[in-house]
Amino acid sequence: MLKLFYTPGACSMVSHIALEEAGARYERHALDFDRGEQLAPDYLAINPKGRVPALVTDRGVITENPAIIAYVAQMHPEAGLSPTDDPFAFAQVQAFNIYIATTIHVAFRQISRPEAYAPGPEAAAALRAAVPAIAGGHFALIEEMLGDGRTFVHGERYSLSDIYLFVFSNYLRMGDRGDAARLPRIIAHRNRVRTRPAVQRVLEIEGLADRWN
Amino acid sequence: MLKLFYTPGACSMVSHIALEEAGARYERHALDFDRGEQLAPDYLAINPKGRVPALVTDRGVITENPAIIAYVAQMHPEAGLSPTDDPFAFAQVQAFNIYIATTIHVAFRQISRPEAYAPGPEAAAALRAAVPAIAGGHFALIEEMLGDGRTFVHGERYSLSDIYLFVFSNYLRMGDRGDAARLPRIIAHRNRVRTRPAVQRVLEIEGLADRWN
Repeated sequence: MLKLFYTPGACSMVSHIALEEAGARYERHALDFDRGEQLAPDYLAINPKGRVPALVTDRGVITENPAIIAYVAQMHPEAGLSPTDDPFAFAQVQAFNIYIATTIHVAFRQISRPEAYAPGPEAAAALRAAVPAIAGGHFALIEEMLGDGRTFVHGERYSLSDIYLFVFSNYLRMGDRGDAARLPRIIAHRNRVRTRPAVQRVLEIEGLADRWN
Repeated sequence: MLKLFYTPGACSMVSHIALEEAGARYERHALDFDRGEQLAPDYLAINPKGRVPALVTDRGVITENPAIIAYVAQMHPEAGLSPTDDPFAFAQVQAFNIYIATTIHVAFRQISRPEAYAPGPEAAAALRAAVPAIAGGHFALIEEMLGDGRTFVHGERYSLSDIYLFVFSNYLRMGDRGDAARLPRIIAHRNRVRTRPAVQRVLEIEGLADRWN
């Protein structure tokens, strides 16, 4: 059976929601980052990167959210989470997810792990202070994309990209990552996605049902 | 027909090589970053991100290297660039590519565009100086992965991941991005990949045949 290694509230929620949406059979194991469990030898044997998510399958381990959720969608085509039989449409979904992974996610990490960019307290302060402007620019591009009245990221059909955007737009609640007031379409999208039963279940499991409501 | 927008020597070379390896019919258009062509209105209409690569298809534009090259592989299964009919193996290829996109590529950009992380000359200096250590850690993980004597990233079969690693390991030539001497397997891999005719053609077209030899 599949096994998801995750941390409550971390970006691994993208994979967690995708598994729930797909109706996949899987186990889950929460790692406590405060106790450094992601760097413990037994976890590094599973994922040498020392990060979440990691999805253990009976053929080996898959890492990186965009790769994990594409796998989940391909293994559960009946869930319709990605147009896996249409290379162009599939590429659009992947490109959107990878855009968040390489831009917004990278920017947010300047707050949680500034030492991953440059050492020292001065660099850390500069890196943290810059996040709202940097992430805001990337979110603004997505806000513009939603400007034609579409319900979901790629039109009227819910996809993996809606899960990705949902998780990262929720991080805007933290106050130090960007100005949600400038992103009304993204916030409306967040409210739509949050009503989905699979999303509700994951918020409950990860202990965010109250804070992300 | 497909049309690739690229910049000689930039990360768009990943998509460029994939198209050549696949034997795809495509046109190419080089953008001059020094003249700011990536931010010209006619290009922003194609790719609002103002970046390369962008692959124009008759159904629309695809961006982000990992998404473009997966599309190329799916449209040309006969080229065998990715195990597109095996979700697990496909996910391994995607995860590797996305790992470089979200780590090594992001680290290298601290040199070319430090203002994308934090403003000011002091932050820029700190961001640039940190790159060899940061990128070195990510490359070390790949070096370790190649330690079982495999010929290519995922074993004995050449794939999209070999293209990805080839382009980024060549950037180590620049001296300010990491210590190639610590990465003998990656450098041996680079030498193997460089001999491929498709790679040779792209190096010629992008004007790097002499510098990357």
